[in-house]
Amino acid sequence: MTTTRNSTPGGILYGVGVGPGDPALLPLKAHRLISAADVLAYPAPDDAASFARSIVADTIAAGTREIRIEVPMRTERFPAQDVYDRSAHEIGETLSAGQDVLVLCEGDPFFYGSFMYLFERLAGEHAVEIVPGVSSLTACAAMLQRPLAARNDMLSVIPAPLEESVLKERLQQADAAAIIKVGRHLPKVRRCLVALGLLERAAYVERATLPNMKTCALADVTAESVPYFSMILLYAGGEKWGEQMGQEDRHE
Amino acid sequence: MTTTRNSTPGGILYGVGVGPGDPALLPLKAHRLISAADVLAYPAPDDAASFARSIVADTIAAGTREIRIEVPMRTERFPAQDVYDRSAHEIGETLSAGQDVLVLCEGDPFFYGSFMYLFERLAGEHAVEIVPGVSSLTACAAMLQRPLAARNDMLSVIPAPLEESVLKERLQQADAAAIIKVGRHLPKVRRCLVALGLLERAAYVERATLPNMKTCALADVTAESVPYFSMILLYAGGEKWGEQMGQEDRHE
Repeated sequence: MTTTRNSTPGGILYGVGVGPGDPALLPLKAHRLISAADVLAYPAPDDAASFARSIVADTIAAGTREIRIEVPMRTERFPAQDVYDRSAHEIGETLSAGQDVLVLCEGDPFFYGSFMYLFERLAGEHAVEIVPGVSSLTACAAMLQRPLAARNDMLSVIPAPLEESVLKERLQQADAAAIIKVGRHLPKVRRCLVALGLLERAAYVERATLPNMKTCALADVTAESVPYFSMILLYAGGEKWGEQMGQEDRHE
Repeated sequence: MTTTRNSTPGGILYGVGVGPGDPALLPLKAHRLISAADVLAYPAPDDAASFARSIVADTIAAGTREIRIEVPMRTERFPAQDVYDRSAHEIGETLSAGQDVLVLCEGDPFFYGSFMYLFERLAGEHAVEIVPGVSSLTACAAMLQRPLAARNDMLSVIPAPLEESVLKERLQQADAAAIIKVGRHLPKVRRCLVALGLLERAAYVERATLPNMKTCALADVTAESVPYFSMILLYAGGEKWGEQMGQEDRHE
């Protein structure tokens, strides 16, 4: 599972998914790698603790070197690429010196994760291994106790920051949908769903799998802004579960 | 995380995601539950071993009762709902007798899984807990070493068994896409991608995370039919990674 991009001896850059929040959802492989790591790196806001690190705090051994990737949280619409330049430089030097570096990623490294900014800068020069994790997508469906998608439904993952007309068009085309990065975009998303007559098909999850998780019908969410770690799931309509479902797609 | 749907004392039905194939991708919680289970159930073709069971074979304790959900693999387009009726009956009786039942699910229970057929029949009468797993979606991206989706890309999960004109329309509308359940539908999918000029953006993965995994450009797949456990990933085009990427959506 490791692709060595060149023949230079050196450490391996691991992108490790630590899941949506419940430490028990950490895969065995991530647990093994993290507990034995010499060097860990993780994103952290410049004014608070790292969420990714908090998920695996009990797994980190004493003496592990930690590289904090401090992402400014106050600026908006401003490319913070210099943060990734600096972090990539520090991580790159560590890899070149022959040490592995594990980057802890909320959810899964390649599902809308900021790990891609490091990956883009380092994968050309260093060996990389991605260790997939439990994504928020399926964690939210699990917490809501409703299948995300089934049979031949199309599932659309739609980022809430999209412009309102685009968002509405995307939602109109969708069968089942997961609207991610809801945060302060909630009023816009709600307007789109109401306009399309889809509000009653929408469920809301906040901080999935954490002790302070909240799940409810979206219609019951009255706040104008919700946490960044929130998701809206929209179920495919017009079809019943169970006996109506053919098995065609499973029987190859 | 457990929802008790009524107040009847009884066992809990667990839907447990066992991941895409590599036993090391099993989450800690699934590992703990499976190793301590009294009763396991899992889908199995009527002519071969269960893939879900094989992933966790080393975790199952001696003496665990196993319920095989035998799904006929020869019939096509035929609803095998009687299989799920019978299995749900057996599992339901076990739950009513006060024993928990863990259903092993390939990947994640609620990401296009057959667990939904049992869930639909049993959730009304029994307490249910869903334990999410690593889905094939992110596992395939990890194995290909390319991010699935980023920033404000929409990600479309598109089942290959869809009718050709529908499939083509869906692919045309998509930014990034994952085409699942490819199997014998490969020639149709390839035709659609070629017609849309998207073939060179498509990557292919077969049996992700297993020792006999195969990854390549889709253009290099010459077979007319591929395994059911195969996926095509289509990357969002026209945008470069790295410095061009704003951080707007991450800074709430």
